[in-house]
Amino acid sequence: MFEKRIKDLRKRLLKEKLDGVLISSVSNISYLSGFSNFSKDEREAYLFIGQDFEYIITDGRYSEAVKKQVTHLTLFERGGEKSTEDLLKKHKKEIKTLGIEEDNLTVSEHKLIKKHFKNLKHFPISRSIKTNDEIEKIERACKLGDEAFKYGLAQIKSGITEKELAFEIENFVKKNGVELSFPTIVAFGANSSVPHHQTGNTVLENNQIVLIDMGVKLDNYCSDMTRTVFFGKPTEKQRHIYETALEAQQKAVEFLEKSMKSGKQVNKFAANAVKASEVDGVARKHIITKGFPSIPHSLGHGIGLEVHESPHLSPKSKDILKEGMVFSIEPGIYLEGFGGVRIEDLFVLENGKLRCLTHSNSSLKIVY
Amino acid sequence: MFEKRIKDLRKRLLKEKLDGVLISSVSNISYLSGFSNFSKDEREAYLFIGQDFEYIITDGRYSEAVKKQVTHLTLFERGGEKSTEDLLKKHKKEIKTLGIEEDNLTVSEHKLIKKHFKNLKHFPISRSIKTNDEIEKIERACKLGDEAFKYGLAQIKSGITEKELAFEIENFVKKNGVELSFPTIVAFGANSSVPHHQTGNTVLENNQIVLIDMGVKLDNYCSDMTRTVFFGKPTEKQRHIYETALEAQQKAVEFLEKSMKSGKQVNKFAANAVKASEVDGVARKHIITKGFPSIPHSLGHGIGLEVHESPHLSPKSKDILKEGMVFSIEPGIYLEGFGGVRIEDLFVLENGKLRCLTHSNSSLKIVY
Repeated sequence: MFEKRIKDLRKRLLKEKLDGVLISSVSNISYLSGFSNFSKDEREAYLFIGQDFEYIITDGRYSEAVKKQVTHLTLFERGGEKSTEDLLKKHKKEIKTLGIEEDNLTVSEHKLIKKHFKNLKHFPISRSIKTNDEIEKIERACKLGDEAFKYGLAQIKSGITEKELAFEIENFVKKNGVELSFPTIVAFGANSSVPHHQTGNTVLENNQIVLIDMGVKLDNYCSDMTRTVFFGKPTEKQRHIYETALEAQQKAVEFLEKSMKSGKQVNKFAANAVKASEVDGVARKHIITKGFPSIPHSLGHGIGLEVHESPHLSPKSKDILKEGMVFSIEPGIYLEGFGGVRIEDLFVLENGKLRCLTHSNSSLKIVY
Repeated sequence: MFEKRIKDLRKRLLKEKLDGVLISSVSNISYLSGFSNFSKDEREAYLFIGQDFEYIITDGRYSEAVKKQVTHLTLFERGGEKSTEDLLKKHKKEIKTLGIEEDNLTVSEHKLIKKHFKNLKHFPISRSIKTNDEIEKIERACKLGDEAFKYGLAQIKSGITEKELAFEIENFVKKNGVELSFPTIVAFGANSSVPHHQTGNTVLENNQIVLIDMGVKLDNYCSDMTRTVFFGKPTEKQRHIYETALEAQQKAVEFLEKSMKSGKQVNKFAANAVKASEVDGVARKHIITKGFPSIPHSLGHGIGLEVHESPHLSPKSKDILKEGMVFSIEPGIYLEGFGGVRIEDLFVLENGKLRCLTHSNSSLKIVY
């Protein structure tokens, strides 16, 4: 699988007339090498690939593990007297144009590389269209996410804090030997009006909203799901908000499937493709029409090795939704001081239809 | 505290003849704003500061929380029709030279900013010298780390897996309502020869090495500690490796304190300061002299809002160790296929002495 990805990369290099590429983003390094243990906090590795060489560059903290796990690439161990620059310089002559990830490489790194290679060209790698193997991994992550959510629901009780509830959910996941894809967000009551609320020590009281946004990472692939439930009977207003958010999601799904079906042609490459911004617009418009404030975030995002990756479903997005893409649809309505509702599911676009990968029931739920 | 930091930043802008600065790194945003909930995975915020303006730029996911928590900065909510670029453009005329974080800003962002500001200048922000308040926070993190390690030690038993042991330790931390500063590393037996081993499903057997590298994050400040213990009686060779690593640490500490005492002058600004590379050299040399391979990583690193920050104690480091700095000293000896030992403690440099902040006993420990 990883060899195939390197082969495809080389084909693209030829096509775009690049003599080599320096990959710096952790997720693309993982995508092409299969090694997923590098931290994003610091630059711990690069891939440096041309037609006749394929290096994975890292230091002594990782070299033993890389040697064992990454047999299709040549390890270059930097550190001590050997720097990344030394290796790049060695290939200076054969590389007229070098691809780089402009969205990831820092200005400092760019300055250093520019010393040796005059022509640098943006080389973005898209992972948005998933293989069956990738979809299956995301599905398994979603399944465990559903189980963890179910477990979490059973822990909801008066007096529990946001942190405690998040802890219970995360524990469930970790007991299965699995990681989280991001720290679980739990928001009670008015806190739910902050879309990315920092889970804190707020204590749950009767008749409050409980918003849970969670994901697990299984075999490096992420799940992501949000549910908003009511601890006690919701007010009419709360019900109205909930139903509107749910309708917005359904309308987005229906619009997308209808557009796929009609073969609405949006670019010359794909007949069965829909503009992501239009899908965003449908859900957004529904919420605004009902008198609520516009969604203060994107309607959705692609997911895979990263929790957030392309395609982006937002008003300004230029992305086109195509077969094989996996993404979230997550409308939200947030009223400052009152509370918020977000409903998020993951979908895969298959045969013109959206297949939902998250299976926790999304109809209005009251927990006692 | 945060107002003071902005004030100091403005003084520096004047001194360096900059009309403004764009801060992009999450840790410096946290350092200057006090808001620490932004993710590092994506660009979720910037600070944009000049003599007459002080913006925190973020989107609707965070704006409500920022409004409440960050009262000393002006919120600019991007999204919808308002982009970061719009705000930058508004200040185009008054800014001749703009500071940027070259080690953090991406090439893409640089291109965009360059369109509006011709003169961009590297503006690194150092957080290496800590205030008493910061040291106290790190100390509290270390204290909880010590307790979690003690708890972890008690869980070591034949048949436990690396993941299970890491889980027990992390659970202990989370039950205290506290986060981890990084995923706990647990390595059994030969796995311990990989300095950053990916904690896995290896089962503990008798007479194996147990390496635990762990840290907690309390009030946004990190701890970091590594201990290597023996499950059953160590062999002579294992003992020898352990004692050598411990000696290397002690020698580094002694050298540093002696150099501080002698007032060895290394630069014109500080009489009581020592080159970080020299301290690294002392420990490294000791290990090599004893016939072991050189440490495949730095001897140590600064710590604070980030697990790894300046100063860096490595052969090529240009950093100078000064009063008020907090950093790790963590020599390691790794023999492929055999196993490894690393001993890591955090120290604060105070009155020419190194005060150790991690208190778990580091003499050779046998666990049954």
